[in-house]
Amino acid sequence: MRVVIVGGVAGGMSAAARLRRLDESAEIVVVEKSGYVSFANCGLPYHVGGVIEERSALLLQTPQALYDRFRLDVRVGVEAVQINRQSREVIVRDVATGREETLSYDKLVLSPGAKPLMPPIPGIERALPLRNVEDTDRMLEAVQGAETAVVIGGGFVGLEVAENLLHRGMKVALVEALPQVMAPLDPEMVDPVHDAMRAAGIDLRLGSGVTIIGEHDVTLADGATVPADVVVAAIGVRPDTELAKASGLKVGPRGGLLVDHRQLTNDPHIYAVGDAVEKNDALSDEAVLVPLANTANLQGRRVADDIAGRGKPARPVRGTAIVGLLGLQVAATGWNEKRLRDAGRAYLAIHTHPASHATYYPGASTMALKLLVDPATGEILGAQGVGREGIDKRIDVIATAMTAGMTAPELAELELAYAPQFGSAKDAVNMLGFIAENRLSGWEKSVQWHEVAERQAEGAVVIDVRTPGEYAAGAIPGAMNIPVDELRDRMDEIPGGDVPLILHCGVGIRSHAALAALRDSGREVLNLDGGYTTWRAGTGI
Amino acid sequence: MRVVIVGGVAGGMSAAARLRRLDESAEIVVVEKSGYVSFANCGLPYHVGGVIEERSALLLQTPQALYDRFRLDVRVGVEAVQINRQSREVIVRDVATGREETLSYDKLVLSPGAKPLMPPIPGIERALPLRNVEDTDRMLEAVQGAETAVVIGGGFVGLEVAENLLHRGMKVALVEALPQVMAPLDPEMVDPVHDAMRAAGIDLRLGSGVTIIGEHDVTLADGATVPADVVVAAIGVRPDTELAKASGLKVGPRGGLLVDHRQLTNDPHIYAVGDAVEKNDALSDEAVLVPLANTANLQGRRVADDIAGRGKPARPVRGTAIVGLLGLQVAATGWNEKRLRDAGRAYLAIHTHPASHATYYPGASTMALKLLVDPATGEILGAQGVGREGIDKRIDVIATAMTAGMTAPELAELELAYAPQFGSAKDAVNMLGFIAENRLSGWEKSVQWHEVAERQAEGAVVIDVRTPGEYAAGAIPGAMNIPVDELRDRMDEIPGGDVPLILHCGVGIRSHAALAALRDSGREVLNLDGGYTTWRAGTGI
Repeated sequence: MRVVIVGGVAGGMSAAARLRRLDESAEIVVVEKSGYVSFANCGLPYHVGGVIEERSALLLQTPQALYDRFRLDVRVGVEAVQINRQSREVIVRDVATGREETLSYDKLVLSPGAKPLMPPIPGIERALPLRNVEDTDRMLEAVQGAETAVVIGGGFVGLEVAENLLHRGMKVALVEALPQVMAPLDPEMVDPVHDAMRAAGIDLRLGSGVTIIGEHDVTLADGATVPADVVVAAIGVRPDTELAKASGLKVGPRGGLLVDHRQLTNDPHIYAVGDAVEKNDALSDEAVLVPLANTANLQGRRVADDIAGRGKPARPVRGTAIVGLLGLQVAATGWNEKRLRDAGRAYLAIHTHPASHATYYPGASTMALKLLVDPATGEILGAQGVGREGIDKRIDVIATAMTAGMTAPELAELELAYAPQFGSAKDAVNMLGFIAENRLSGWEKSVQWHEVAERQAEGAVVIDVRTPGEYAAGAIPGAMNIPVDELRDRMDEIPGGDVPLILHCGVGIRSHAALAALRDSGREVLNLDGGYTTWRAGTGI
Repeated sequence: MRVVIVGGVAGGMSAAARLRRLDESAEIVVVEKSGYVSFANCGLPYHVGGVIEERSALLLQTPQALYDRFRLDVRVGVEAVQINRQSREVIVRDVATGREETLSYDKLVLSPGAKPLMPPIPGIERALPLRNVEDTDRMLEAVQGAETAVVIGGGFVGLEVAENLLHRGMKVALVEALPQVMAPLDPEMVDPVHDAMRAAGIDLRLGSGVTIIGEHDVTLADGATVPADVVVAAIGVRPDTELAKASGLKVGPRGGLLVDHRQLTNDPHIYAVGDAVEKNDALSDEAVLVPLANTANLQGRRVADDIAGRGKPARPVRGTAIVGLLGLQVAATGWNEKRLRDAGRAYLAIHTHPASHATYYPGASTMALKLLVDPATGEILGAQGVGREGIDKRIDVIATAMTAGMTAPELAELELAYAPQFGSAKDAVNMLGFIAENRLSGWEKSVQWHEVAERQAEGAVVIDVRTPGEYAAGAIPGAMNIPVDELRDRMDEIPGGDVPLILHCGVGIRSHAALAALRDSGREVLNLDGGYTTWRAGTGI
C-alpha cells in the first residue's frame, strides 16, 4: 500500500509516523511545501524573542532522521499541485526547480494547514506573518536594528509575538479591531490581561482596526498613527483548501474541508486532517474551525489507525487553549458567555477569585476563574481562567470533567492532590462545584456584574460587606458599607421595605456568608457573582 | 436546634461554617481541645523550616472572628470528656481550669482527628510529633541551637519535616522501617525521591526501624547509631476514637469510627467526620483510613448539608495526595501496584517519562508517570508521578478522569490546554492514553522492569535500541545494542530462532517505533515498559 501525505507538520507527520508503527510494509511519502517538517510551530514566537535561543531547537526532525527511524520518504520544498482522483495520483512540484513528479496513492492524506489572513489593507505586503520557519527567519531579519513594531491581531499568536518583540527591547503596539484581545475569553476576564500588557509597556490599541500600513507607521480607523519599523500580521488564519477544492473535494459551511467521522473527505481514498478541516463542536455539534495542534495530532493518528483498519471515530472539539503572557496564564475551554448569549442558550455564569495555592504558603496569587453552566442540567458549558499560576491545571481538570460528562456540582466532589504549594484543601475547582451546587439548587441567588446598575435603577440596594478600608479604596456607586462581621448588629441600618438587596464583597465569599443573616427576612437577597473584583473588571469603573 | 461540634479544625470547622450559612437560627457550639481552631495543619512543617515566616500565618481564624462572621460559639482549650447519648449531652472540660460543663445537643458532630503513632520504643517520650500549633511551638523551641535531627517515618509529614529542618541548616537523618519512603508510590517510582534526598544531604536510612531513642542519638535495628539532638516522630497517625468508643459508638475494621453514607455513627444524632472515621475505597468499597484534608472538609460540609436537610451521600476516596520535596513533586491517586498485587487483582502497568512541557521551550524537565489499568475493562486503577513540574496537573487530570469513570484509552482523546510553557501538543496524559490503547488492544506487548531477568533466563534476547553512547554509559546486563535508526539495516545481527525479543530504549518511545520493524517476524517482540529509566530505577543497578 502506498500512502501519500501532503503536509509534514502536526497532523500529517503524526499520521505518517503512526502509520509506520502500525504497518511496516506501507510505502509512505510525505511532501511538505516549506523547507521543514515537524517544526515547532508553537515555538516560533519564542525564537523571535530569543527565549528559544537556538534555531535548531525548532527543528524537531529532518527528512533523513525520519527515513532512518520510520522509513518515511519525506520531501521538503515540494508542493502538491494537482490531485487526479480517478487515477489516484497527486502531481507534486519541487518549489526550487519546478520539476514535477506524479505520485500514485492508495490513500491520500491532506494536511495542508491554514494560511495567515492578509486582508487587503494598503501596504499589507509589508506585514509579516509567522506560520513557519521561513517566516521566522524573515521576521528575525526584519527586527534587526528595528525599534518599533506594530502587531496586528490580539489572538494567541499576536500576544506571543508582542511579548517576544518587547523581550527583544522593541517598542511594541498591539492593534486589535475588537474591543478586547483573546476572543475566547469574555471581556471581564480579559481585563487583567489588558492591564498586564499596558503595565509592561505595550501600546494597546483596541476597537480600532488598521486602515493603512505605511512605510514607517500604521494608521488606524480612529485616525491615529503608530510608528512601525516592523508590522506583524497575526490577524488569524483560514484553512488552506485550494488544492482540495480544485480537486472537487467539498468544503463545509465554515470554509474548511468537509470530513466525516473517519476524517474522510467526499473521496473515500482521501483523508484530511488538521487546521484545514472543519471539526464538530462538542456542545452543539456545529461545524467549527479550531486550528489547534492537539486536535491536529490526534486526527493524524486516527487517520493512520483508520488506514490500518483500527479506526476510531473523530472526537469533537472544545477548543481548549492557553497562552502564557507576561507572567500570566490565560486559558479557556468550551463556550464563552458571548457565544452562549448569541446562540440564545440558557446559562449560569460563576466567577471566583481563589488563591492559586494555600494563602499561608508563600507565593500564592489570585486567579480569576469563570464557569458557565447549564441551569437545567448542570452541564459544564465552558470555563475560563487568568492568573499567574495554576490556571493550566484548573482548566485541564475542568476540560476533563466536561469530556467525561460530569456536571458542575460534581466538581465539588473531586479528590484533587493537595499540599500547600499546589492548591487548597478545598481546591479552586471544588469551590466552583460548591458555588454551582448553591446556585443550581436555588439556595443562593446571584446577579452578574453587568446587571447591577439596572437592578439599582429598579430600586435594589447594594450592600458592600467589605471593610471600611476596602470600601474607601473603591466601591460600586450607590453601595452602602456594612462589614460582614458587623452585619448582624447593624440590621436596622438596612433600608426597609421589600426592595431587593444585593450583597457583595471582594470576590463573593464574605457576601455568601452574609447572605445567611438575611435569608429569613423574606426579601430578595442576591450575591454579586465574583464580587467587586469581577464588577470592576467588567465595568472598567 | 443546637449542634455541638467536637474538634475545630478541617472537618469540624467546615461543618460549623457551612451549617451557619444554611441555617441562621441554629445554635452552633464548637469545642477544640488544643488552643487553636482552623489552623493550617499542612503548613506546620514549613513554619518549622522558616518558609512560612510568621506564626500568625498558620492561624486562619480565631474564636472571636468566627463569632463575628458566623455567630459560632467556639471554645478552645476545651475537651469533650463524656457523651451521654440518651440525654443527648456532652460533658466538656476546660483543659486549663478543669471546670466541666454539660452541653445538650440535638446533633453532635465528632471531628476529633487522629493522634500521632508513638510506638513503645525506649526514649519515645523525647520524640516530637507535629500535629498542631502547640507541637510546632515545641519543635521550634527544640531545634533552637540543635545541630542534628532524626526524623522517624518517611511519609508525607516526615519528608516535609526533614526538608524543613535541612532548610534550617540542620544535619538531618530520615529513618524509615520500610525499604522506601512514600508508601503510596511503588518502589521504582520512589527511586528518584531517594536520590534527591541523598543528593540534598539527608542521611536516608531505609529498611531499618528505630530501636532505642537515646539522649543524643538514635539506634537502629541494624545496630547503627545516628546523632540526634532532636527526634521527630512522623510515623503515622491513628484515629482518635477514645471518647466515641467510651460512648458506645462503633469502630470499623480499620480502627476508625464507623459511619454510614450520611456520616452518621450508630447513633442517629451523632455524626463523625475527618481523620477519625473510616471511608470507603472508591475501587473496592473496602473500609480505609485516608487522613487527608480535602475529604475531611468535604465530609464536614456534607454533614452540615444533612443536618439542614440537604444531604448528599458521602463520596468514596482514592487517596489523591501530593508532597513537594526538594524541588520535586511526588503525587499519587488510587491504588498502587503493590496493593493490586496483594489483592490479587489483574492490572496492566504503564510507565512513561515524558517532558513536563515542550522540550524546545526552556526549562522542561522529565517526569516519571505510572498508570495502572484494568486489562479487561480499561478502568484506571491508579496513577503515580514524580518530577520537577506538572505532576500536580497530570495527577489531578487523571484523578478527575477516574472519578468520572473514563477508561485509560479515553485519556488519549482529552483536549488539554497546550502552549509550549505548559505541556505538549500530545500531552503526557494523552500519551498514557495512547500507550493504553496499544497495550489493551494487544497490538503492543510489554514486559515490566522486574520481569526482564527472568525472561532473559528463559532465553529472551534484550536489544537496546539507544545510541552506542547511551549504551556505553549503562545498560541492562546481557543486552545487545542496535540503535533504532540502524535496526532495519542490521536485522541479520539479531539472534535467530524463535526466542522472544525484548526491545528497549531510554523510556519506551524509540523501542515502540522499533517494534514495527520486527512485528512481522512471527516471533514474540516485547517493549520494555518505561525503558532503561524505569528498569534502572526499579532494579537499582
